[in-house]
Parts: sequence; structure tokens; C-alpha cells
Amino acid sequence: MAIRQRLSSEERRAQLVRLGLERIKSHPFDPVLLDQVIESAGISKGLLFHYFATKRDFLAAITESAAAELLAATEVDPERSPAEQLRQGLEGYIGYIEQQPDSYVAIARGAGSDERLFAIFEQTRSTLADRIVAGLVIEPAPLLRLAARGWIAMVEEATLMWLRDQACARDELIEMLEMAALRVLPEVLARV
Amino acid sequence: MAIRQRLSSEERRAQLVRLGLERIKSHPFDPVLLDQVIESAGISKGLLFHYFATKRDFLAAITESAAAELLAATEVDPERSPAEQLRQGLEGYIGYIEQQPDSYVAIARGAGSDERLFAIFEQTRSTLADRIVAGLVIEPAPLLRLAARGWIAMVEEATLMWLRDQACARDELIEMLEMAALRVLPEVLARV
Repeated sequence: MAIRQRLSSEERRAQLVRLGLERIKSHPFDPVLLDQVIESAGISKGLLFHYFATKRDFLAAITESAAAELLAATEVDPERSPAEQLRQGLEGYIGYIEQQPDSYVAIARGAGSDERLFAIFEQTRSTLADRIVAGLVIEPAPLLRLAARGWIAMVEEATLMWLRDQACARDELIEMLEMAALRVLPEVLARV
Repeated sequence: MAIRQRLSSEERRAQLVRLGLERIKSHPFDPVLLDQVIESAGISKGLLFHYFATKRDFLAAITESAAAELLAATEVDPERSPAEQLRQGLEGYIGYIEQQPDSYVAIARGAGSDERLFAIFEQTRSTLADRIVAGLVIEPAPLLRLAARGWIAMVEEATLMWLRDQACARDELIEMLEMAALRVLPEVLARV
């Protein structure tokens, strides 16, 4: 006789998000996402909708969880030099996207059509830029934030393009992006 | 007695796209877009659907028309120096988006959820990057294309962020983006 696992409300919610995130990593834009998750969790669809009022709420929770993973993957060691932190952050970012490029593209593009998912993406990019700015200066000037956000967009775009055909070496990509930050950000800092 | 304007099939199609583009510039994401366009054109909904099989087809035609406008706005004079061309292209790009920031954001974000609209955006960015690369070198290396596409993404992101609060001067923004291209692209060129 199968015994349905007893979980606290919080544990169940976390389990469902984790199962959704796993599923999305291997099957982006999956119309059977919900069915797969309730099957893996051994629960009814009704119970899933007890935790997440709509499919969109569930997708938002999964996107938040992916954003938290990305922020964790790009954490840097504050004891290291700024140049080493830059390299560590870039390696973490590219390494994270490399694991699941299709999902990253699918989630990033899908987010455009939904205010809440878009806000999660915006918040993540903003946090990444804030980290860079905070490593450089105490009171950031608006222009430095624009440059940092612009550089994050450059990293995202170049990485997604590179993943399509990997037409140059991974290290060349990383070194180009690193060079861009090292040339541009200090010069902006000197101007503001 | 009102006389309905007689237009050739091609003229009618162009008129509808032009009316749609005008409407989208002042009322992004407008649920009554179609109704407004047929009213302005003085035609029936049936006739609009004769030219565009679906609302999505009509939106794709409008997006293509906006992309053509953006490419025209960023044309540069090949007789000028590379630095002057860079400045001219940046001024054209920012000037175009400045006219209708909400529409640009709405179209760019909406495009994420539709393969065809996304492809139009991709093609536009790719054309912009190709122009830059073609101005620098005859046989572009993959890394240079990645850097140029990354820089285009930087320009787009920084411009859209700047438009929200215009927290620094327009010239500071343009000079920062110009400096980024001038520091990064020649160095990539020297490496490949």
C-alpha cells in the first residue's frame, strides 16, 4: 500500500517548486508541466492549486527559485581581488546558463509577456548590477549603474549567442566580457 | 455621401500598417488597435482580415515596419570617420526610441512570447551588429560579432533604463556608450 508522504505546508510548497524547476530545466515550455509535477509529488491537481492559485502563480514561484539559484551561482568571495571577483562571477553566470540554455532562453523570453515574471528578471539583473557597483564605489552615480546594467545585458546577450554555435572558445568569450568590464567601468568611475 | 477611398491592394496594405504603427506609437498594447485602424481607414474588419489573416499577422507587419524605421534612423554616412559614424548611429538609435519609449518596451517585451515577432527583433539587432562589424573588418571573427551584439544589447538596456528617470544627462549616456564601443571593439579586433 502506497503511503502518501506527509509534509508540512511549507515543505510541500518548496517540494512542488523544486519539482517544477527540475522539470523546466529538462523540458522548457512544457504543456504537461503541471501534470508531471503532481505525478512526481504524488498529489492531486486540487492540492497543487491549494498552494498556487493559478498556473501563472506556480510559474512565478519557479522563476523566483531559478533567480535565487542564479544569484547563488554568481556569488563571489569578497576576500578576493576585484578582478578575481569579476572572473568568478562571470564563470558562475556562464556556468549556470550553460547547464540549461534552452530553459534560460525560454524563461527569459516568456517573461516578456507577463508583468510578474518580468519583474523577477528585472530584480535579478538589478541585483547583479548592484553587486558590481557596490564593489566599486560607496555612493553610486546614475551613470555607473547604467553602465553596470548595460554590461550585464552584454554578458547575457553574448552568452546566449555563444551557446547557439560556440563559434569561439569559452575562455575567449569570458576574457572578452571581462575585458569589457575592466575597460568600461573604471573609466565611467573616473568620469562621474 | 462619403466616398470610400479606392486604393490598390498594395497601397491599402501599406496604409493599414502605417495606421497601425501610428496607433501603436501613441497607445502601446492597445486592445482596440484593430477597431481604431479600420475606423481610421474607413474599411470593414472583414477587409482588414483580407490583407492580414490574423491579428498576429497584422502585428508582425507593424513590427517589421517599426524595425525598418529603426534601421533607417540609425543609418550612417559612410563618408564620415568611424568615430563620427558611431556617434551618428547612437544619436539615431536613442532619438528613435526616445520618441516612443513605451511602445518600444511594449513591442520588445511582447515579442518574447511570439516566435515571429522575436525573429524580427533578432534580425534587426543582427543587422545593427553586422553594420558595426562591417565598418571595422572585412572577415569578421566570431568573437567580434559576439562583442558587437553584446554592445548593441548594452545600448538597448542602458537607453531603456535611462528613459525611466533620465537620472543623468543624455550626452553622458551617449558618451558612455560611445566610449564602451571605442574601448572594447578595437581591443577585440586586436585579439582575433
